[in-house]
Amino acid sequence: MTSPAISRYPIPKLDDLADDIRARMLEVQEKAGFIPNVFLALAHRPDEFRAFFAYHDALMLRDGGLTKAEREMIVVAVAGANDCLYCFIAHGAILRVYAKNPLIADQVGVNYRKADITPRQRAMLAFALKVAERSGEIDEEDYATLRSHGFDDEDIWDIGNISAFFCLSNRMANMIGLRPNDEFFLLSRVPRQK
Amino acid sequence: MTSPAISRYPIPKLDDLADDIRARMLEVQEKAGFIPNVFLALAHRPDEFRAFFAYHDALMLRDGGLTKAEREMIVVAVAGANDCLYCFIAHGAILRVYAKNPLIADQVGVNYRKADITPRQRAMLAFALKVAERSGEIDEEDYATLRSHGFDDEDIWDIGNISAFFCLSNRMANMIGLRPNDEFFLLSRVPRQK
Amino acid sequence: MTSPAISRYPIPKLDDLADDIRARMLEVQEKAGFIPNVFLALAHRPDEFRAFFAYHDALMLRDGGLTKAEREMIVVAVAGANDCLYCFIAHGAILRVYAKNPLIADQVGVNYRKADITPRQRAMLAFALKVAERSGEIDEEDYATLRSHGFDDEDIWDIGNISAFFCLSNRMANMIGLRPNDEFFLLSRVPRQK
Amino acid sequence: MTSPAISRYPIPKLDDLADDIRARMLEVQEKAGFIPNVFLALAHRPDEFRAFFAYHDALMLRDGGLTKAEREMIVVAVAGANDCLYCFIAHGAILRVYAKNPLIADQVGVNYRKADITPRQRAMLAFALKVAERSGEIDEEDYATLRSHGFDDEDIWDIGNISAFFCLSNRMANMIGLRPNDEFFLLSRVPRQK
Amino acid sequence: MTSPAISRYPIPKLDDLADDIRARMLEVQEKAGFIPNVFLALAHRPDEFRAFFAYHDALMLRDGGLTKAEREMIVVAVAGANDCLYCFIAHGAILRVYAKNPLIADQVGVNYRKADITPRQRAMLAFALKVAERSGEIDEEDYATLRSHGFDDEDIWDIGNISAFFCLSNRMANMIGLRPNDEFFLLSRVPRQK
Amino acid sequence: MTSPAISRYPIPKLDDLADDIRARMLEVQEKAGFIPNVFLALAHRPDEFRAFFAYHDALMLRDGGLTKAEREMIVVAVAGANDCLYCFIAHGAILRVYAKNPLIADQVGVNYRKADITPRQRAMLAFALKVAERSGEIDEEDYATLRSHGFDDEDIWDIGNISAFFCLSNRMANMIGLRPNDEFFLLSRVPRQK
Repeated sequence: MTSPAISRYPIPKLDDLADDIRARMLEVQEKAGFIPNVFLALAHRPDEFRAFFAYHDALMLRDGGLTKAEREMIVVAVAGANDCLYCFIAHGAILRVYAKNPLIADQVGVNYRKADITPRQRAMLAFALKVAERSGEIDEEDYATLRSHGFDDEDIWDIGNISAFFCLSNRMANMIGLRPNDEFFLLSRVPRQK
Repeated sequence: MTSPAISRYPIPKLDDLADDIRARMLEVQEKAGFIPNVFLALAHRPDEFRAFFAYHDALMLRDGGLTKAEREMIVVAVAGANDCLYCFIAHGAILRVYAKNPLIADQVGVNYRKADITPRQRAMLAFALKVAERSGEIDEEDYATLRSHGFDDEDIWDIGNISAFFCLSNRMANMIGLRPNDEFFLLSRVPRQK
Repeated sequence: MTSPAISRYPIPKLDDLADDIRARMLEVQEKAGFIPNVFLALAHRPDEFRAFFAYHDALMLRDGGLTKAEREMIVVAVAGANDCLYCFIAHGAILRVYAKNPLIADQVGVNYRKADITPRQRAMLAFALKVAERSGEIDEEDYATLRSHGFDDEDIWDIGNISAFFCLSNRMANMIGLRPNDEFFLLSRVPRQK
Repeated sequence: MTSPAISRYPIPKLDDLADDIRARMLEVQEKAGFIPNVFLALAHRPDEFRAFFAYHDALMLRDGGLTKAEREMIVVAVAGANDCLYCFIAHGAILRVYAKNPLIADQVGVNYRKADITPRQRAMLAFALKVAERSGEIDEEDYATLRSHGFDDEDIWDIGNISAFFCLSNRMANMIGLRPNDEFFLLSRVPRQK
Repeated sequence: MTSPAISRYPIPKLDDLADDIRARMLEVQEKAGFIPNVFLALAHRPDEFRAFFAYHDALMLRDGGLTKAEREMIVVAVAGANDCLYCFIAHGAILRVYAKNPLIADQVGVNYRKADITPRQRAMLAFALKVAERSGEIDEEDYATLRSHGFDDEDIWDIGNISAFFCLSNRMANMIGLRPNDEFFLLSRVPRQK
Repeated sequence: MTSPAISRYPIPKLDDLADDIRARMLEVQEKAGFIPNVFLALAHRPDEFRAFFAYHDALMLRDGGLTKAEREMIVVAVAGANDCLYCFIAHGAILRVYAKNPLIADQVGVNYRKADITPRQRAMLAFALKVAERSGEIDEEDYATLRSHGFDDEDIWDIGNISAFFCLSNRMANMIGLRPNDEFFLLSRVPRQK
């Protein structure tokens, strides 16, 4: 019995990869226990792989006013809006890990208005979804609303650019039929013991 | 510390409930280990409670060409389309139980086109979503497509009516701010041992 | 020459019906002069028939802050939004009867913003349509708006649940191709003499 | 007690009107028994009045492959799509007159797919609504479909231009809050005796 | 090599045209240096041609509170919303001429929120687009907003009717496949010398 | 008199930029005669700048089955769908240059169905817009359609990824209010002499 395909495109063998790309995969495997399929699938195009993850790291690892969990909330909410199974599941898992909260990812992905989050986080996600769905209508009022919740302009850039980057990512995942690793579905579902 | 509210409306005490309603709750508690919040919240209106669950049972427990898992697939896909957190999570759990598959509920809820289901099931969900989103456009061609997948007219009624009933249910849950029990999020996430 | 079909599904004969279902039909026939097709068509599934009308009666006959005409306004506006010919026509007729107003049903069904109704009724219909079309976005502000028009929380439940129930009903009618009785089109078109 | 306003704009007095405009009104009053409000409201701008009715007559009175009833079907279906109460009601009445059918107007306005019309008429209305709602996507296939139903290119022009003209008319009526005369609601509701 | 067709319908020869129609064409040719294709294509139906341009002139040449450039802004913004290449290009050229601004037409056509226009003009275009896209929702608040920007009710009629008229025009152009004259694309692209 | 802002965010001075970023800007200035504003605005975040242009170059400079003009057609059509003024104008200019055709950019940006392009290019743009607007619905049929037009799977990846990348880019430009350089509006408007 064969496993379901993880992409419509061929997956390169680890041995055939450029050193930097293989190194990145082994590093994430070391940390997570498995290689997320997005690495395997995007390695089909090494230059795009490098740019994609450089962009990802610039946004997601950057110091700033948003916590890691908040960045992942944006990703999961945008994935829900874009019907992207891969990012909903994979970043849902990461969000559960960062937030130490087994409920938050599904709440944010299905309907953030019902999630156990702060009003500030709700404003953040409302803006992220406006960037995802109606960016042509963004205006000064949107900035004013976010500032009234304590976000500064660099935070707003982060919120908007994370949303925009995952609009790219969701579309690629949907186009190539990227399948989430089974591991992501269960990851961090049990609340941490205190 | 107080728990988050499970509804915008008051939750009656078990002792204050009519006997038939309390009995139904105790029965589901016996089986599931907890009382799903939909029972507690809808008991605010006893007559509507009775009609709601009578309708539910008529559709979900009826013999026919759809498996229990397939009926729950319809519920979860429709909940995704209607941004209904309660049904997405609660019926997602039930779907995992019936299908003995820890991945299927999220797949179907986020984007059924990417789910590990049969072409027949994909046709079933496409029709369920047409009933949910554009029922005014249903015509003979939709029936012909479903028949070509082996559904008979009674199956089609079931598919459509389950979708329609949960369009009611999703709207009520969204309107009253119905919160899924925490238990549902984790239920049946681990694959059954063989 | 044959009459057009009233449903895509078989219509049971009155003699073959369970006593309670036949009794209900005869009762409405007594009152209206004819049996509305929704009774005939839903009798194809007796258990669903019973649950459907139990739900209907719980909502439409309940005492509360909404008049009977206001309840029917909700039904007609929602039917318009869902492109449901049966409910638009049948409940349009009932609305004309209750409101003693031959214009109101078409006004509300085509565009309630142009109807001869009060600002309070306009707020009621705006909420009913939000439940019908974007229930995932309902929030505390919607409740506050309705309260400012004098609705209490039980009224709000009624408005929302009537809308939700007819979202079910409209989808079923569209799915089975339910045809309005010819009688409904003309009913109560002439203003009552004073 | 005052009557509800028929327009957001002033209605000129008949005596103040230019002769040709007053003559047109008297002519229609002679025929219909009352002056439809669209004449009174548009007379606020005499030059636009003249152009509007010249356009209307060029389309609706022209000889060609469409019957008068079919032209009015297009108007009513488009009015439904544009939520235009005035044209739905006023042209619904005219459609009932031409078609000698008391049911057809509501059927076509609410959901033409459920109407008692021919497949050829259904194709005609599908095209009219594409012109109304997604004209940028019209292509050769649309023409081929209509030709397969026996329409020639001049008929297609008529269908499309009637739809386009009433897209103008519906928007004006909605903008000025044009109110249908009460008479239109009841007109020709009773089937003609044979 | 043949030129691409300018319409799906036959273009009459100038010699075959009625005198008034040919005169109108020669007049515009005299002024613009070429005959815009809309004249040639609509001449296929002389009566509609006359009504169309009578309506156009009544709206676009009328004295009132809107400048000629502002009227053309409405046309271009509406053409963008309706995906109408002909009006976007042809009226974009006319807008550049009237506004003496080589940038304004593309700005307004693609996204008027980013255009170099005044807040008053932004409010004007927001209303014009509401007439084009959701006229059934227009209410007193829209009028109040426009009045707060200094528009009187006659200006509002103009804004709305220009939008409505070009909703007709865009649909006809899309339906017949009307091709913009090549000349329009370049017209007035270079800023006037001072 | 000051120029309009080119971004909601501060523009770094050339002297303050990292060497590689300044070098890239000077290179494009050398070639184009001016520095496109996207370089100036994105330099606010050097790491994101580098990743953005690395991604851009990987997609737009890659060898493959799409011509440079075809790649720019995708960009312009997607910018139109996303209401992104910057990319519509800037890449419209680049498209005119590559295609040696002064009409093509506006045609493709406003409505590619009316553009002077091949059926193969029309299929390419239809897929690019599906990636931009409904990527969750992409399936094997879309691949089959493109293959029937002679595209291989690497071409399809290119089409989809260019669309996805500019969905990111359009959202960023809209969010920061990125203003196209005036030069772009006029560039290559006059047909090349033969």
